[in-house]
Amino acid sequence: MESLIRTIEILEDAVRLLDQRKLPTSEAYVTCRTVEDVAEAIRTMIVRGAPAIGVTAAAGIALGMRQVSHESESDIETQFDSICQRMAQTRPTAVNLFWAIERMRACAKPYLDGSLRRLQEALTLEAHRLWRQDIDINRRIGEHGLPLVPPQSTILTHCNAGALATAGYGTALGVIRAAHFADRHIQVFADETRPFLQGARLTTWELQQDDIPVTLITDNMAGYFMREGKIDLVLVGADRIAANGDTANKIGTYGLAVLAKEHALPFYVAAPLSTIDRSLATGAAIPIEQRHGDEVRLVGSQRIAAADVEVANPAFDVTPAPYIHGIITEAGVAMPPNSATITALFEPTQMP
Amino acid sequence: MESLIRTIEILEDAVRLLDQRKLPTSEAYVTCRTVEDVAEAIRTMIVRGAPAIGVTAAAGIALGMRQVSHESESDIETQFDSICQRMAQTRPTAVNLFWAIERMRACAKPYLDGSLRRLQEALTLEAHRLWRQDIDINRRIGEHGLPLVPPQSTILTHCNAGALATAGYGTALGVIRAAHFADRHIQVFADETRPFLQGARLTTWELQQDDIPVTLITDNMAGYFMREGKIDLVLVGADRIAANGDTANKIGTYGLAVLAKEHALPFYVAAPLSTIDRSLATGAAIPIEQRHGDEVRLVGSQRIAAADVEVANPAFDVTPAPYIHGIITEAGVAMPPNSATITALFEPTQMP
Repeated sequence: MESLIRTIEILEDAVRLLDQRKLPTSEAYVTCRTVEDVAEAIRTMIVRGAPAIGVTAAAGIALGMRQVSHESESDIETQFDSICQRMAQTRPTAVNLFWAIERMRACAKPYLDGSLRRLQEALTLEAHRLWRQDIDINRRIGEHGLPLVPPQSTILTHCNAGALATAGYGTALGVIRAAHFADRHIQVFADETRPFLQGARLTTWELQQDDIPVTLITDNMAGYFMREGKIDLVLVGADRIAANGDTANKIGTYGLAVLAKEHALPFYVAAPLSTIDRSLATGAAIPIEQRHGDEVRLVGSQRIAAADVEVANPAFDVTPAPYIHGIITEAGVAMPPNSATITALFEPTQMP
Repeated sequence: MESLIRTIEILEDAVRLLDQRKLPTSEAYVTCRTVEDVAEAIRTMIVRGAPAIGVTAAAGIALGMRQVSHESESDIETQFDSICQRMAQTRPTAVNLFWAIERMRACAKPYLDGSLRRLQEALTLEAHRLWRQDIDINRRIGEHGLPLVPPQSTILTHCNAGALATAGYGTALGVIRAAHFADRHIQVFADETRPFLQGARLTTWELQQDDIPVTLITDNMAGYFMREGKIDLVLVGADRIAANGDTANKIGTYGLAVLAKEHALPFYVAAPLSTIDRSLATGAAIPIEQRHGDEVRLVGSQRIAAADVEVANPAFDVTPAPYIHGIITEAGVAMPPNSATITALFEPTQMP
């Protein structure tokens, strides 16, 4: 039985987040009491991971609207728009954020001309529904991914696509959890994932909670271990997937995909359908967030390069679909990923 | 004119080393007064880089023998052997260490049965000669590498193969220096090079001393920038090169070579002939140093993973010769590197 990691909790007057910047040295929680608190928590990566960002934004919108107390004082729709826009400005790459905002907009629409209380109730229910749904989706991703994980295999993963990146259970780590609890006797290699160190700080911590064997390596060691025959497959999450299967994910994912190809290892992406942005034909149109250079120059309070050293810090890269063996979703696996197999995921008749 | 970086200074009663663990935040020097001090400085990476380790070991042997004061008290040859063996136990991968010890053994041989003073003088002269020779060799590596660097190009380098890795001027950074001072208007991308961060801490600092434009990236960003068309060639140093051109270098080098191949970019190694170990037919026989897991779990005093997380920490990897376009040495460029082109480097008639 896997342990319960409380990444996001939707409370009546707040959204409570596990502060992922402080793991693994401290398990601290941040209580966001306003829309601005929630937006800043997303921007500063107190919460991160595409699905978790989506659920948090939905919870933030519901929270913000619950704080609109006087129906008469200003235009409800304008306030709702402003809250949604604030959420949309936090991080540009993960599409789940925009998907969740759209879900909240669609939920709000029938109530914008009516009673504020009913709007508030509907949005709060919807935020809770997205939270529960995300965990259910991840469990189905785990089930669909399970047949792709041979017994005794060693899986390389990058960043954290786990319970900490979602409402719970995880996408890539959901598949790993499913394999572990199905007694496949798997092992995990976790890239540390500079600069934010999600692999070192979060993935190892999360896997240790569930006693899943994990070995931490630096990002530049993946090639060595593939060549040594120590890795059997690569399994990562995603922040946005284009209609053709090109996948934006944490910086370094593309390099792993090239290495996997060179060593003839399968490379899988695990993500909910909400990560697929069918409005983009290819990955070339996915915006790549460029973050502050101090994330590279400093590790915590430790300086590793002079303050005036030029730094480039793209937070994501795009792995072209031909490098990806399969995209594992709650509706099945697009294998190989291309426009046809991805379209099929959205057709109910194709669902297993 | 390039700045003078004093990596290693051979003093009468000591070997003075720039403490590379403390750069770039502090420019501190460590004075090694005994053989044991010098050996520990190599093991703990106060000094690192294959050629620098070789010169330091030679200086340490000469220092140790200068401290053998009474000819009668014990057997000189036994003491000399013991000092050489202590140096050999410091780090296993870089062959320049063993090459320098052999040079000192060959220098000592005619004097072991004679006057201690003459032995001491000969070894001291030889250590100074190796120091000067290393800088000369690096300047010739720079000259041979220069034609391989197109004007305006952006060069990706890994770890630190610079003045800090040698007695001065550098190997890979020697080629970069040569190109810079020949007004080629080059730019450098420096991988930070986890876990020891030689790229972030040392290469950016060293290039800034000479006003060579440098951008720091994390190791996992190389693929992104290659795909974006921002990198024109890759240039790295080496710790040991087998007779067929297979090259051991800092962990992560092999991954860069695979990425360079995928993007059809030239990948060059720059190293002195003393890095070539002709006794090994291929890279499979090169011993790979495995270092302590805390180098990964901690960055300085900053903890990034729990103390009980399993860590793998190989310090080097081997890049097979077919990934390497050329090996740039003081005797010319082995291009493409293979047994024949490498053998030719050692034949005087082949030297330009």
